[in-house]
Amino acid sequence: MPELRHDPITGRSVIIASERAKRPRQQLDRPDPTLKEAEPCAFCPGNEALTPPEVWALRKDGTRADQPGWSVRVVPNKYPALESSGASIAKKDGIYESASAIGAHEVIIESPEHLADMGSLNVGQWTDVVRAYQARLVALGSNLRWRYLLLYKNQGERAGATLEHVHSQIVAMAVLPPSMVAELNRAQTHRESTGRCVYCEMIHSERASERRVIESQKFIALCPFAPRFAYETWVLPRSHTAAFEQNTDETRADLALFLRDFFLRLNRVLDRPPLNYVIHSQPPRAEADGHFHWRMEILPQLNRAAGFEWGSGLWMNPLPPEEAARLLRDPL
Amino acid sequence: MPELRHDPITGRSVIIASERAKRPRQQLDRPDPTLKEAEPCAFCPGNEALTPPEVWALRKDGTRADQPGWSVRVVPNKYPALESSGASIAKKDGIYESASAIGAHEVIIESPEHLADMGSLNVGQWTDVVRAYQARLVALGSNLRWRYLLLYKNQGERAGATLEHVHSQIVAMAVLPPSMVAELNRAQTHRESTGRCVYCEMIHSERASERRVIESQKFIALCPFAPRFAYETWVLPRSHTAAFEQNTDETRADLALFLRDFFLRLNRVLDRPPLNYVIHSQPPRAEADGHFHWRMEILPQLNRAAGFEWGSGLWMNPLPPEEAARLLRDPL
Repeated sequence: MPELRHDPITGRSVIIASERAKRPRQQLDRPDPTLKEAEPCAFCPGNEALTPPEVWALRKDGTRADQPGWSVRVVPNKYPALESSGASIAKKDGIYESASAIGAHEVIIESPEHLADMGSLNVGQWTDVVRAYQARLVALGSNLRWRYLLLYKNQGERAGATLEHVHSQIVAMAVLPPSMVAELNRAQTHRESTGRCVYCEMIHSERASERRVIESQKFIALCPFAPRFAYETWVLPRSHTAAFEQNTDETRADLALFLRDFFLRLNRVLDRPPLNYVIHSQPPRAEADGHFHWRMEILPQLNRAAGFEWGSGLWMNPLPPEEAARLLRDPL
Repeated sequence: MPELRHDPITGRSVIIASERAKRPRQQLDRPDPTLKEAEPCAFCPGNEALTPPEVWALRKDGTRADQPGWSVRVVPNKYPALESSGASIAKKDGIYESASAIGAHEVIIESPEHLADMGSLNVGQWTDVVRAYQARLVALGSNLRWRYLLLYKNQGERAGATLEHVHSQIVAMAVLPPSMVAELNRAQTHRESTGRCVYCEMIHSERASERRVIESQKFIALCPFAPRFAYETWVLPRSHTAAFEQNTDETRADLALFLRDFFLRLNRVLDRPPLNYVIHSQPPRAEADGHFHWRMEILPQLNRAAGFEWGSGLWMNPLPPEEAARLLRDPL
């Protein structure tokens, strides 16, 4: 029996319709078209001049900016979706409202090697990547103009990537998106009415039932109750932490190990699927013990949104998260 | 300068970022992978036994149900996302809420010929298709269990189709999706505060400026102010009509001609793009002169949602609708 499920964190509704996985040519098996790499790759060492000048890098001592010698390198996006300077001027024209889209848009190049898959990174590389994520979230968050930061990855053509070399992006904006406002309100209401963090409560309840838990150590990987995507997985810190930037040397090492293992696991089950991931951290300059709790959403792109999703705002997912978690837990 | 625009109808926000169209390998040019058809095609005449028994058809006199002789044929979806029988039982388990997903899920086979593109239909076929859409919206809407109907099309692999032969789907549900509730509330508020239909007001304002209008006769085709997709187009009746089912013989003939012309136009510019379309009609049994106004959203699938969209709920669209409308207006 298909089920309409509501996500207590985001408010989204999803129809878990496992009958649809029986379609003869359903979409979960299709290979991802290969990204043919433009030559030369702007993200490979030696081609630093093909990107805007770097804003941050982890480098070997004695190497110079915009030269080889880096392990992670961050540059402004050459084709930004947002304008970094100027004021956000609101306009109204009859029923229409708009504003200049002010913000920052950076690219985090996650390895000097031309790798196409985060599953190829070792623990040391993951540690560097997490350090870079934290550094850019802190740096952008200290700019009083930005009220919202989103770190996201597009990996594989089907997941919207236009370049193969591993990279993520970070967007900083002057306004909170409506979905974030709604999630923060929901979390605040839950905290005020129950005294508890809704994310901690979700973790507690998932660990008790175990049905949707993949791994649980200092971090937990779980398939959420109402996932949009087949094999959608959320990673959260077990102990309440509002912001991704609050990772310490110790938790960073734990997280790097956890993510390295998780991506190996994912690749054993799905053979390097196209995927997106996003890191939801507490908005900049919110209280340190706020009602938010950071998470990373890993979103394999196997099923896809189509007419039903665009029209209704609801989702259909053919794979129950209990089944996805079972497969990811024992990937043999 | 990129612009953050808000849609007055749906409440969605979109960043119009035309700089991003300059990316060397941006996604607007990619060909759609061809759907290799499973043999035999369950939607071709002679193979009627491969689908569930038909619930409606336009047939030549003297032909029998589930036999050849039809021009449009409607069958239950063999792999339904919703269960047609039983009660919608709500469940609560800690922080999680769900209900059995009750509803109808039908497939409208739009031509006996094995066509892959709605641009291949002539006016007579479009008239039959519109008649079928109306008939199913009326039939499902008369069932007191259904409070929401969505008619949608997935055409092309990139748009989520699993079968090539032209078809649409219709879903009936026992609950209104949150996005529909929000749109209805917005329309009602506008009507109560201004005395006007917000959709009529949009049509009026677009016709006055002309910048986003593609065609305007008894129906209007326009690129909306804040489109999610490149070349997104909305078709609406010029004179206020709440429900698609209210089409008369006369408006149906006009609409068929309008849609035939529009899809030819689209194919001249985009060469049979993968696309979705959805028909938003007033929910069943609402007042005949309600504040809703039906529309068809045509959503070419050239740019795609990725990490930014999944994470923020906002959209990035590299093609300003003013430019899309200009190209669609004069397709050389």
